[in-house]
Amino acid sequence: MHNGPDGAVPPRAAGEGEVAAGGRVAEPGDPAGPGVVDLLGLLAYVSLVAFFRLTDDAALAVSLADKAALAEMAVAEFGHFQLLRYRLQELDLDPSEAMHPFVAAIDEFHSRTASADWLEGLVKAYVGDGIAADFYRTVAELLDHQTRTLVLEVLADTGHAEFAVARVREAIEADPRVTGRLALWARRLIGEALGQAQRIAAERESLARLLAGGEVTQLGQLGRMFAQLTDAHARRMAALGLAD
Amino acid sequence: MHNGPDGAVPPRAAGEGEVAAGGRVAEPGDPAGPGVVDLLGLLAYVSLVAFFRLTDDAALAVSLADKAALAEMAVAEFGHFQLLRYRLQELDLDPSEAMHPFVAAIDEFHSRTASADWLEGLVKAYVGDGIAADFYRTVAELLDHQTRTLVLEVLADTGHAEFAVARVREAIEADPRVTGRLALWARRLIGEALGQAQRIAAERESLARLLAGGEVTQLGQLGRMFAQLTDAHARRMAALGLAD
Repeated sequence: MHNGPDGAVPPRAAGEGEVAAGGRVAEPGDPAGPGVVDLLGLLAYVSLVAFFRLTDDAALAVSLADKAALAEMAVAEFGHFQLLRYRLQELDLDPSEAMHPFVAAIDEFHSRTASADWLEGLVKAYVGDGIAADFYRTVAELLDHQTRTLVLEVLADTGHAEFAVARVREAIEADPRVTGRLALWARRLIGEALGQAQRIAAERESLARLLAGGEVTQLGQLGRMFAQLTDAHARRMAALGLAD
Repeated sequence: MHNGPDGAVPPRAAGEGEVAAGGRVAEPGDPAGPGVVDLLGLLAYVSLVAFFRLTDDAALAVSLADKAALAEMAVAEFGHFQLLRYRLQELDLDPSEAMHPFVAAIDEFHSRTASADWLEGLVKAYVGDGIAADFYRTVAELLDHQTRTLVLEVLADTGHAEFAVARVREAIEADPRVTGRLALWARRLIGEALGQAQRIAAERESLARLLAGGEVTQLGQLGRMFAQLTDAHARRMAALGLAD
């Protein structure tokens, strides 16, 4: 095992012919190969941090009912983290080590997109929920049976954001001037997310290869995946009245 | 219905012969009488705030594993909140209104006992978990069948604090000088908790009467309950090496 291109010591470094979890030699598409382990580590850390950030945003709510509703989304994210952590443990991997290569990028995303108020928190929750659901749906097709089952289980538990949509709509109706600010905020969120996604893809070659369906021309494939996620995001924003 | 002695407009004011949930006249020991509704509202708000404060404290952890472990305690508290909220809704009550009379006292407790660091957060989690378990066990005996079943269900889900105990022990072994500071912290926590408990008992007569087993000499009975909770807390602190 060698150090990853990010200079840190990842649990499984990028590249083929690596040793998979349990000491076996990884095959392409191996359920414990480096690409899948990276994906599990990434999704676990994304879920854990989403739990903390959604809880922070929930604390901004004025009413106890709104506070509890956003906390409920946070708790669902923690449930996703628990499922992913359990899968890493099943593979005899240390969840903290599997998450480690993604800490910097995910933390930077959140430090650059801290919600200034309750409405920004709601939009962020809705944007994150939508992109996560699309990503889980897309990535499931590329995975081995076991990992796909896990990803679909997590996917089935997303979609807690209806209440966020209702609250944002109410706020826009009550004061249409918030539209411009929130539309700009939603664009910033997707821009920052794509920036960090590209950084991760560049740093973690086996993950990029997995997400590109094993293609050598992975950057083009990944670009198409990101474009599809962005299109779907734009459609959701338009439906919410936050079109460009 | 009249305003409570706290000056706010509670969903059910203190006193007997009040209208219970669903418009029926409350009987002493009524599962929807003002004492029980106060108890449900109090426990719901305590659980909701514990979720937020434990999540804040979890964010202070250095390792991802510790962060996740304390977040797990926070999520368990949210589960308690959900059970209690569901019971209030079953009784046709607005959970926010039932929690409202207790917001000031519980918020003040937490604002006066914000953890300065990870170790203080762990001690607070352990102290809170222990007192909550003792309180649930004691109060269960005083309740009607339905409310008792709920309280015992919540009680069965406490006791997530073993890891906090292990971490505090390690910290004391690594540097025995932290003992004095943490013992002082634990004393402050119980002192502040008792102060707010006495404030709530004074403000909410039907709750105080319920907790005193319906006795007129409720202050003496309540004093004995508080003393028992304090004794059990002191035994746990001694076992942890944080004796006075």
